[in-house]
Amino acid sequence: MTTKGARTRTRMIDATLELIQTRGYHGTGLAHITAGAAAPRGSLYFHFPGGKDELVAAALDRVGAEFTGLLESLIAGGADAGTVVAAVFDDLAARLDSSGFATGCAIASVAVDAAAENPALQESCARVYESWRVVLEQLLARDGVPNPAGLAGAIVSLVEGATVVARARRDTQPLDEARAVVLELIGATR
Amino acid sequence: MTTKGARTRTRMIDATLELIQTRGYHGTGLAHITAGAAAPRGSLYFHFPGGKDELVAAALDRVGAEFTGLLESLIAGGADAGTVVAAVFDDLAARLDSSGFATGCAIASVAVDAAAENPALQESCARVYESWRVVLEQLLARDGVPNPAGLAGAIVSLVEGATVVARARRDTQPLDEARAVVLELIGATR
Repeated sequence: MTTKGARTRTRMIDATLELIQTRGYHGTGLAHITAGAAAPRGSLYFHFPGGKDELVAAALDRVGAEFTGLLESLIAGGADAGTVVAAVFDDLAARLDSSGFATGCAIASVAVDAAAENPALQESCARVYESWRVVLEQLLARDGVPNPAGLAGAIVSLVEGATVVARARRDTQPLDEARAVVLELIGATR
Repeated sequence: MTTKGARTRTRMIDATLELIQTRGYHGTGLAHITAGAAAPRGSLYFHFPGGKDELVAAALDRVGAEFTGLLESLIAGGADAGTVVAAVFDDLAARLDSSGFATGCAIASVAVDAAAENPALQESCARVYESWRVVLEQLLARDGVPNPAGLAGAIVSLVEGATVVARARRDTQPLDEARAVVLELIGATR
């Protein structure tokens, strides 16, 4: 692919991601995507022959990899479980605040409005959630936290739920409450 | 209003609620609602002059009142905090399972895909979440659980997040994990 083609492709995924984060799967139309990416409609099908669903799947994969990457870089830097979890909630609060609570988690958006009728996207969401849970489980197990598998699952749910409630309330307090609860559960003191 | 009119109105809210729970705000069209309610399009504006957004707000209010009612009836029956929380997660798991993971929480759906661009619906979502949090806070405080305000907020987030993740995974395990974590937090043993 040419450099220009790669840039167009990236811009299309960027635009799709932002739209899904704000308006969900059904609120994201191809016209919005091409307008957001400043790309002609024809180039959308050139880069993504599967159309909207291929673009959405690419956007979900990117979110999945980004959040896993954030976790792994914190862990590789030697952070303990409490520090990693605190950083995750602080990062989410900062993102929500900087978007004026307009954009949330793309995985939750698609899980809520498209997964029931779209098995391929449902599987994408499930795969991303499991990838996050596994990294958290490994971190908790490394630090000797009891019940790392179940607790990692609960942390993923808390991250997703607190983001939803924070958007509804236009307030980062749900993330602060979730952060405090998780730190208590893993026995961290900060 | 005539009895027939009241029934039509109720059917329209029923249909709207089911659609939002499955496909979100943007995936719910007026044609879907009138088809789901077996009602003519004209009667929609007769009963809901504000159109789709008035119907959606009515659906959100109903979900809000139903869940608060479930909590209050459990509390009035003398249940302790652990029993109430366990019953909530069990109820959600049973609902998800019986719908084949197709329908989730309408409040989360609207918070995720419409709240950013629709202040009235954003406020509806915020009001419902706060009403749930307050009932839970009163229950936790009555039972002497420490930090009832923050913990109640975290429980609302866990309920919402675990439902989202369970839908993505088509598995009630996230609700079981959330249930166990909340029972641990409130010091219940079961």
